[in-house]
Amino acid sequence: MAICTVYTTQSLNSTCSIYTPTTTKTQLSFHQKQLVLFSSSKRSGSRRGGSNTCVITCAAGDSQTIVIGLAADSGCGKSTFMRRLTSVFGGAAEPPKGGNPDSNTLISDTTTVICLDDYHSLDRTGRKEKGVTALDPRANNFDLMYEQVKAIKDGVAVEKPIYNHVTGLLDPPELIKPPKILVIEGLHPMFDQRVRDLLDFSIYLDISNEVKFAWKIQSVDTVWRASKASIEARKPDFDAYIDPQKQYADAVIEVLPTQLIPGDNEGKVLRVKLIMKEGVKYFSPVYLFDEGSTISWIPCGRKLTCSYPGIKFFYGPESYFGHEVSVLEMDGQFDRLDELIYVESHLSNISTKFYGEVTQQMLKHADFPGSNNGTGLFQTIVGLKIRDLFEQIIASKAAAPVEATKA
Amino acid sequence: MAICTVYTTQSLNSTCSIYTPTTTKTQLSFHQKQLVLFSSSKRSGSRRGGSNTCVITCAAGDSQTIVIGLAADSGCGKSTFMRRLTSVFGGAAEPPKGGNPDSNTLISDTTTVICLDDYHSLDRTGRKEKGVTALDPRANNFDLMYEQVKAIKDGVAVEKPIYNHVTGLLDPPELIKPPKILVIEGLHPMFDQRVRDLLDFSIYLDISNEVKFAWKIQSVDTVWRASKASIEARKPDFDAYIDPQKQYADAVIEVLPTQLIPGDNEGKVLRVKLIMKEGVKYFSPVYLFDEGSTISWIPCGRKLTCSYPGIKFFYGPESYFGHEVSVLEMDGQFDRLDELIYVESHLSNISTKFYGEVTQQMLKHADFPGSNNGTGLFQTIVGLKIRDLFEQIIASKAAAPVEATKA
Repeated sequence: MAICTVYTTQSLNSTCSIYTPTTTKTQLSFHQKQLVLFSSSKRSGSRRGGSNTCVITCAAGDSQTIVIGLAADSGCGKSTFMRRLTSVFGGAAEPPKGGNPDSNTLISDTTTVICLDDYHSLDRTGRKEKGVTALDPRANNFDLMYEQVKAIKDGVAVEKPIYNHVTGLLDPPELIKPPKILVIEGLHPMFDQRVRDLLDFSIYLDISNEVKFAWKIQSVDTVWRASKASIEARKPDFDAYIDPQKQYADAVIEVLPTQLIPGDNEGKVLRVKLIMKEGVKYFSPVYLFDEGSTISWIPCGRKLTCSYPGIKFFYGPESYFGHEVSVLEMDGQFDRLDELIYVESHLSNISTKFYGEVTQQMLKHADFPGSNNGTGLFQTIVGLKIRDLFEQIIASKAAAPVEATKA
Repeated sequence: MAICTVYTTQSLNSTCSIYTPTTTKTQLSFHQKQLVLFSSSKRSGSRRGGSNTCVITCAAGDSQTIVIGLAADSGCGKSTFMRRLTSVFGGAAEPPKGGNPDSNTLISDTTTVICLDDYHSLDRTGRKEKGVTALDPRANNFDLMYEQVKAIKDGVAVEKPIYNHVTGLLDPPELIKPPKILVIEGLHPMFDQRVRDLLDFSIYLDISNEVKFAWKIQSVDTVWRASKASIEARKPDFDAYIDPQKQYADAVIEVLPTQLIPGDNEGKVLRVKLIMKEGVKYFSPVYLFDEGSTISWIPCGRKLTCSYPGIKFFYGPESYFGHEVSVLEMDGQFDRLDELIYVESHLSNISTKFYGEVTQQMLKHADFPGSNNGTGLFQTIVGLKIRDLFEQIIASKAAAPVEATKA
């Protein structure tokens, strides 16, 4: 039988149950400011981690964990997108205190972001030996990913492995407590159907190859050939295992070269599309002026002057992998605050709590990459939409009776 | 000395002066429900008509005549545009009662439309003899046009000649009393600078040659060659004397072939532009969603379904003959009421007095040509803008002291 440890922490009023593999069940009650968490002293050895571990389930009316999936090729854990998202909920996102300094996890008051690289079943050497890339499903433990995400969603803390990006080794696990919002970020959040079904909302960050190449050129000029080669080497697996996930995403942020500068290949000015699936519960797509119609808008004109090459928006209904979607596109970049607030004021359904909240968020992180273009704008907006989704789910759960928890 | 006749009529409280060529001036006062009007028993023989006639001037605070110029190639007097305009003010527009059955004038409660063909100085035979077209300024008496329009604007009734379109002759004159709104419609409302300066608002109806040809083909199939020939024969004079007036217009309605059907030359589906000059007193251009920006809008989508080929709008700032203008363009046509009301509800600055007034006006005259496309829509909107302009002028005059009248 596994050993269970109870951690105390602040701020949640919970009713908890302890499950063990022997199916013994003990009801526990804790005062406010106590939270029961799970930790197994023994790392789950089997591929189906948790089958022989004890589980403490906490069903708190106000602490339902919602799970967000973010598929992105790189920048796991510390990505700008995640910092923007956690910022919307307030508080800084930081690695777990006192833990592995190479942890990929980011924790804020509301949100915990885990990196799916931590579910690599093969370390760097192992991948080399077997001749598979990190993109290959065979290098990843989807069973464990599913069980741990499910456990957290059910209010159960887990001991999540750590893939050390510095050493390329699998480090000892770290404790992940159920947060209000769990973000699973990485290469395969929507690859395994079981994991996919746990997601309350999913996002795919789609950087076009042209832009990837341009960014590599910009960032490390001297290694550009190698970088291009590395992008090209990853391409078959990327196309086979990563790219197809976008069909499942509730929102896709697509980063493309600008169309405002003919023949541009610098990748400095970007055209960014926010593709939003219709009919997703608790998610109402953003729109421009007239919902469901097709619009192109150049805000720069008499009221707003913009510097070259200006700003151009597009909005309209489209089809995306057979799904009905609404697309909002921004080409160009903001040069001044008034441009940003002007654009914000003309967008609808952005789920702000006050006038100018998008602009405030963008200014707060003006030093983040993409703060002057569609990537920053749409990441911020998606953050607000997730906050809205979270609040709607909490409200609907509060209205419904507290569900019985299951192991 | 000329003989002056006093007519009584209803509804105006006026202070009037009688001017005669001998400059004798008599102040008259009338009770409400009396109006002084001018009639000379003798047709003004000189080109500068009125120089030897007596004039009764009525300066009524609430009955300032505003003058609207409408330049259009044809359809004078009985045009759809004028019927739409007068309809906005309520009451039917009819020829003067008991007058010449071939009169070109249309009178409603508020509006009098006079046809500038009535200022032809040469009748059909005269033009033929001198080898000039009706478009040629030499076939028109601009001095008389100026003096009579000025007199009416000053509150003075005039005896306006009648050009009989049936006989091609100049008929005896008819009395034109100063209305609230005088519309001078025809080939040259903005040709003569003196007349132009009298206009409170001017409109140019610009039918492209492609559409003119298509219309001729549709209407009288068998004479199409002759019609095309006639359009082409008029073209040099049209280009020399009519077309240049559009640079002076406060609003231009341009009728073009559709771009929704590639290669279309039927002229059934139209693309219509409303070109509105910026900075015109009492006239604020209509806009779509965001004033001063550039927008294209296909309203047909999720909320509104349209039949082929759909409807497409464009709005944006442009330059027109060196003037700053705003352009609103509609391509396509309305098939159903909901399409019309949907479009109306998304236009701003249309000067309606209640929600759906444009739609109501269009439905009221659903049998008029162009009621399902941009010509009808923009004619109706221009009518509403003129009502607004009129009301603003009246309000500003009421605020200012009553001006001294001049002969």
